[in-house]
Parts: sequence; structure tokens; C-alpha cells
Amino acid sequence: MPTIDDPDDLRGRVAAAQVARLATLRGDGTPRLVPVTFALVDGLACSAVDEVKPKRSAKLARLADIERDPRVALLVDRYDEDWSTLWWVRIDGTAVVQTGGAFRERALDALAAKYPPYRSARPQGPLLVISPERWAGWSAS
Amino acid sequence: MPTIDDPDDLRGRVAAAQVARLATLRGDGTPRLVPVTFALVDGLACSAVDEVKPKRSAKLARLADIERDPRVALLVDRYDEDWSTLWWVRIDGTAVVQTGGAFRERALDALAAKYPPYRSARPQGPLLVISPERWAGWSAS
Repeated sequence: MPTIDDPDDLRGRVAAAQVARLATLRGDGTPRLVPVTFALVDGLACSAVDEVKPKRSAKLARLADIERDPRVALLVDRYDEDWSTLWWVRIDGTAVVQTGGAFRERALDALAAKYPPYRSARPQGPLLVISPERWAGWSAS
Repeated sequence: MPTIDDPDDLRGRVAAAQVARLATLRGDGTPRLVPVTFALVDGLACSAVDEVKPKRSAKLARLADIERDPRVALLVDRYDEDWSTLWWVRIDGTAVVQTGGAFRERALDALAAKYPPYRSARPQGPLLVISPERWAGWSAS
């Protein structure tokens, strides 16, 4: 199994990805999976939460998970019918929720630069900030 | 947030997806994320594990996770620059590993029917079988 070991390669694949899948941990310890948009800022993976209402929304659940247990995983991958082109990169780390501050504004700028919809409607809600503790990657070729 | 409630709609989106992301739980309780190919057979999500060597491979780790704690999540989603077309479907359930038997053969047939590479090289390893306990879905439109 050809692992990707080069940190620049791992980081470059993640930075270029438009979507990632985030796993948080529910109160009962089960994994909660959602797709997320994100941007890498100062080596941190940042994802905006632009809706926290209604109270029972999946996005609020994600924030409650992190406040209870900060351990998360983020996965970026490529799928194609040609399996020789497959790869994935996984970040394991811990997440915090930021509701204000200069870093959050800078991360929202990076998200707006990456995603046109965020330019016309800048996210108003909390920012989820993942500190990577371990990067892992695999490539078929 | 427009949830997808129709069971046929949820199932149809998952059945048509070529790739899903699987979360298992490591021994320390952290989520392990990997992309997987899969097929729905009798309402069960089946994924082949075609390499169990070397011993330290990510695929073996996934099997060890499930034998330790069967709780898993499987996510299928669509990403597009047009955010009005986004959707995701999530299955929460429990997984078992099957190393033989008639169901495994039938699932391998379904995988081969769905994925041409499995026709030329039928998976020889264990089959991961997920019993869905809860389906959830969201669509932007």
C-alpha cells in the first residue's frame, strides 16, 4: 500500500480539495459524519458553521460534539472509475469552536477566497478550527 | 434545513453512489475515516476488503476496529460548485466482518456488477457488512 509521506504533498492535496468529510464523536461515542467546506489557514483546517438555528440542526450537533469531545478526523479523497488514480489524505486532530476574534476573520477571508458563495454571504456563525495531530495518506500509484 | 425523509429517496441516492466514506472507531475511541467502494445488498451496505497484508495496513486496522466496536457510520454526498445541488445521506449502524458464506458471495457478485475492476479481480478478502440502524439525509434544494 503506497503511503504518501511527503508533508508538502499531503498538505497540497488537502489545500486543493473543495470538500472534506468530517467525523466528530456523539455523546454515546459513535462517529457523526458530515461533508464540509474548509480552508487551511496557518496549518489549521477551518470550517464555517453558517447556520446554528434551528436548535436541533445537524450543524449545531457538530458543535456540541466538539465541545464534549474535541477529537475529530477529516478526510479528503479522490474517486474515479480508473482506480489507478485513487488517493486519500486523512487528518486526525482536535477541534475548537471560535465565535469571534482576528483568526476567525482571517479564516473567513480564506474561505471567501476559496468559495465564491461565501463572498456574497459571509458566514456569520461559529468557526470550527481543527489542529492536526497526525497526517496520513495513501495513493494507488 | 431540508431533510430527506423518503426512505426510497435515501436508499436510491446511496445505491447510485460510487464511493462512500466510512468511519470506524479506534481502540482509543477516535474516529478512523477511509473512502470505500460498496454495494447495497438486502438493505445492507457491503464493502470488500481485498488486502489484509501487510499486517499493519489501514484495511486491517478497519477490521480490527469493527471487531472491537461494531459501531460505524457511512456517508454519501454530492459536492458541486453550485451549492444549490448539494446533498448528503448518512447511515449509522453496526458492522460485522464475513470471511465466507453464501451472502458474501452474493455481495461480491453485486460489487462486481457495480465496479468493473472487481470483475477482473474478484476480492478475496473479508467482507464488511453494515446493518443500518438509522438513515439521515439533507438536500440543499
